[in-house]
Amino acid sequence: MKAYVLYSGGKDSSLIAILLKRMGFHVEFVTANFGVYESYIPASKSAKSLGINHNILNLDKNILKKAVDIILTDGFPNNGITYLHKVVVEKLADLANENSFSTIADGTRRDDRTPKLEKNEIRSLEDRKSIQYVNLDSFGYKTIENLVSNLFEITIEESNRDNGSDYEVEIRYLIDTERNLNSKDFFPKHFQTRVIGLR
Amino acid sequence: MKAYVLYSGGKDSSLIAILLKRMGFHVEFVTANFGVYESYIPASKSAKSLGINHNILNLDKNILKKAVDIILTDGFPNNGITYLHKVVVEKLADLANENSFSTIADGTRRDDRTPKLEKNEIRSLEDRKSIQYVNLDSFGYKTIENLVSNLFEITIEESNRDNGSDYEVEIRYLIDTERNLNSKDFFPKHFQTRVIGLR
Repeated sequence: MKAYVLYSGGKDSSLIAILLKRMGFHVEFVTANFGVYESYIPASKSAKSLGINHNILNLDKNILKKAVDIILTDGFPNNGITYLHKVVVEKLADLANENSFSTIADGTRRDDRTPKLEKNEIRSLEDRKSIQYVNLDSFGYKTIENLVSNLFEITIEESNRDNGSDYEVEIRYLIDTERNLNSKDFFPKHFQTRVIGLR
Repeated sequence: MKAYVLYSGGKDSSLIAILLKRMGFHVEFVTANFGVYESYIPASKSAKSLGINHNILNLDKNILKKAVDIILTDGFPNNGITYLHKVVVEKLADLANENSFSTIADGTRRDDRTPKLEKNEIRSLEDRKSIQYVNLDSFGYKTIENLVSNLFEITIEESNRDNGSDYEVEIRYLIDTERNLNSKDFFPKHFQTRVIGLR
């Protein structure tokens, strides 16, 4: 059994990877990149610290542009990020098919709202792409906190362009460099947790 | 971390137990019994084959009677079984609290309809009882099939009173012995899968 896990270097995507590994899957990480900034580097370092192979999924910049358009129209990031995540999961399913991987996974949790695939979207994806999709829906946030603190060494820093690999990095880069706007007006300041090894 | 896993001896409740074990939980099995038939014996054997401690949760026969009333009124078992499962999960949460277990779990799956706790019911349970609830919502049926066939030795037999420990056994016993009806009219014939060891 092989699984591609969508990877940001954060605790949730690291947790689903370790869970799948311990249940007998051969796991590889995949981080999406839209060619505007090398935002996959932190994820790459985290992957190395867990001893799991890391792949970059290079995607069309126009997908990122559309997500940014949604965010600028809305004035807040949720719908744009959800759009981006759904496209990335579809592309990951295609990559899995091409490479005979049966399973794709991400670190979305039972209590998450954005980004999140609904049950009917999961079933549609699995049927259309002949893959199986796994996430962290089995667990509430407290259980995940406990598992993470037992499993991982982590760093927590104020988030910046170079300490995270989630969608936000390239979205903000595009807003700041090509739209002559300040991405701080759309994304609240927050802290970035990154996995730097197993305990 | 300690977890009580609601246990029937079947593949789904065995799978969530092994998953929690491999993620670092100390796991114990619990099977509910309403005092009308020793339906926990098959689960007890399965638990032994997995090397996991097995407990019986003795509950009031009136809970079972109410489930049977619902089933006889409806003419089909779904709502009665769902009622029973929800009561059992509440009682399991109380047992967990009394014994300083932080987590309770069952083998319900993403694609299950009956019995199943909805997200709002899960959140309410966790808040009211100060416990964490885990199930198999992370996985679709194909992933579960693959994991089960990799992990467990199983037997498959036409279901009867003595080869399964799910709610159906005591429900049917009560219908057949106390209600002068034939439980076959309410439960379709089916096959019973029971775990008899790790591969």
